[in-house]
Amino acid sequence: MSIRLQRLIERLAAAGWIGAALMPSTNLTYLTGLRFHPGKRLTLLLISANGDTPVMVVPQLELERVRAASPFAMRYFAWNDAEGPLNALAAGMTAAFGAGTLTRPLAIEHTVMRVMELRMLETVAPGLQTVNIDPLIGELRMVKDGEELALMERAVAIVEQALHAFLTQVRSGLSERVLSRMLHDAIIAAGADGESFTNIVASGPNSANPHHENSDRILQPGDLVIIDCGAVYRGYQSDITRTIAIGEPTAAARHVYDVVLAANTAAREACRPGVTGASIDAAARSVIEAAGYGAAFVHRTGHGLGLETHELPNIVAGSDTPLVAGTTFTIEPGIYLPGQYGVRIEDDVVITKERSRSLTTFSRELIVIQE
Amino acid sequence: MSIRLQRLIERLAAAGWIGAALMPSTNLTYLTGLRFHPGKRLTLLLISANGDTPVMVVPQLELERVRAASPFAMRYFAWNDAEGPLNALAAGMTAAFGAGTLTRPLAIEHTVMRVMELRMLETVAPGLQTVNIDPLIGELRMVKDGEELALMERAVAIVEQALHAFLTQVRSGLSERVLSRMLHDAIIAAGADGESFTNIVASGPNSANPHHENSDRILQPGDLVIIDCGAVYRGYQSDITRTIAIGEPTAAARHVYDVVLAANTAAREACRPGVTGASIDAAARSVIEAAGYGAAFVHRTGHGLGLETHELPNIVAGSDTPLVAGTTFTIEPGIYLPGQYGVRIEDDVVITKERSRSLTTFSRELIVIQE
Repeated sequence: MSIRLQRLIERLAAAGWIGAALMPSTNLTYLTGLRFHPGKRLTLLLISANGDTPVMVVPQLELERVRAASPFAMRYFAWNDAEGPLNALAAGMTAAFGAGTLTRPLAIEHTVMRVMELRMLETVAPGLQTVNIDPLIGELRMVKDGEELALMERAVAIVEQALHAFLTQVRSGLSERVLSRMLHDAIIAAGADGESFTNIVASGPNSANPHHENSDRILQPGDLVIIDCGAVYRGYQSDITRTIAIGEPTAAARHVYDVVLAANTAAREACRPGVTGASIDAAARSVIEAAGYGAAFVHRTGHGLGLETHELPNIVAGSDTPLVAGTTFTIEPGIYLPGQYGVRIEDDVVITKERSRSLTTFSRELIVIQE
Repeated sequence: MSIRLQRLIERLAAAGWIGAALMPSTNLTYLTGLRFHPGKRLTLLLISANGDTPVMVVPQLELERVRAASPFAMRYFAWNDAEGPLNALAAGMTAAFGAGTLTRPLAIEHTVMRVMELRMLETVAPGLQTVNIDPLIGELRMVKDGEELALMERAVAIVEQALHAFLTQVRSGLSERVLSRMLHDAIIAAGADGESFTNIVASGPNSANPHHENSDRILQPGDLVIIDCGAVYRGYQSDITRTIAIGEPTAAARHVYDVVLAANTAAREACRPGVTGASIDAAARSVIEAAGYGAAFVHRTGHGLGLETHELPNIVAGSDTPLVAGTTFTIEPGIYLPGQYGVRIEDDVVITKERSRSLTTFSRELIVIQE
């Protein structure tokens, strides 16, 4: 059994839950190293809080691959399309948690498990009581070990290399969509297993929308362009945003850029062991508010980063858990002026024993594409 | 309101349900044209069976984009991270379905909706009774209109162009992983918005595993290699598999190839209006069984294809619904000999008014890479 799984089992027992039923997900990858293609066939890892060998309910089609890839012993209950999953699930639940009605709540992933799996669990375990495991497992995943940090640093290095290569190709006359594809290719060419998310190339007035979808808009002289992208390396993600200018920007735009950069710097300076997400958020927000743009900073300052692009911790008001060494997250303040332009500057940071460190090393100076 | 949405509302009313709550999903794209990045923030389209203007519960961050992109009128209930979604959801549910306890079941997507959304619905609508909408909406989506078929034909043409370009680069000495990346690049370069799924390059003994994950295995002379890939074009998918040989294959491997090709041909010949998925599956399976390989054909003959890589109909025993013109699906029989090799040949077909047509035009002859 992995150390990570042992730690989870301790937490399940301490919470007074009978165990957990986990989906094919980044949680499962974190605990077992196993990866699955997303699919509609029921696949569940059943973990008892009493520390028994875990149970895997798995489609027959996947059994050999899973058995070969699993790093520790599991008890397998396979099913095929002809008979369906219910018998295997019932047998697996009995093996994991004993016969009859479950005596304590079963922990499930509220943001991952589908109604399909929940209804099947309710069918084989009448009277089932469930509880959300997401916060507990999110807390475990928040703090990265050395192996995870090394993979994240590689993911950061890859996307920075790609961004350097990409910026030499950016010029007015190209569309957001074409540039997005070039950026994608650059990220793959730099050694990524994939993009962390579909990259965003938001130009001119589109940069004022923090969730812009790449369009056929052609970049024009005078545009600010927000470029938000990331690389996946062996499951781990990077996430970087830089805002560039196509030709010399207006003095007003330069001022907005400087305010966002100051907010980014203030937030990074605030990062150290024991600080909360709320106070890091406040560090960035107070700079932007003091400059009179408080209402234009419409999202949180950052989010946890690791096996997913968005995980714990939240860097936002109300996040009052003190952060410990090994915690990784983004710092990405922004100012969005509808109809005009937006600016966002995003780095990935890790809390260290002494203070903190930016995994992102890419220059934060405004890059002006001279044409 | 779109014709597709009107049709859904008629079906909801006929089923005696109060309406539906739909997630950001391919169903939502099908009905409204709207697309969403996958996220954790609650977003639901509430559709009343009485035909009222639909209600959209949406994060504040997405409101402007959704409003601008929506092709018909909706009533919006937006929420922000500070207050959370429950108030907006409660108000939206009342607007859509009236105050108080729902009088009839609410239809939800069992294979899409997460426990998170279900629990929130249960919180704002105590005593909620739900029913699975997936089969009903799957039936609607199964039959493509002319616009959809045109997009699918484009997705097929793109992946075929990419596969032609890719095959000129395949040779022994390259790994599955490197080849997979080259194939990805070729699909994007050919004009795809993305891959339908992570392509599979399964070489030598790995080809005997129908769900192989690309590895660092180096292709060797004498290998059979299964290449399974697809392109997305404006949301619609293609899906093709070809098995190639690195150097002249053995007579036994050629024989297995010929059996699979005969099964593929028999299944395609069986496709016409009124036929069932079960009988198409039987057409392929009987060829493989007659050749003595029945136990080595370990999956269904095919699956529906459209906005998703796997949708209705199932081409498998038990699928007894007569198929009508416009229905699109794959035909992909295979033989898998563990420890040795596997062969799969997959095409995309559409039932026509007269008979059927293969959207896939790529040669089905065994391609031998001469070195």
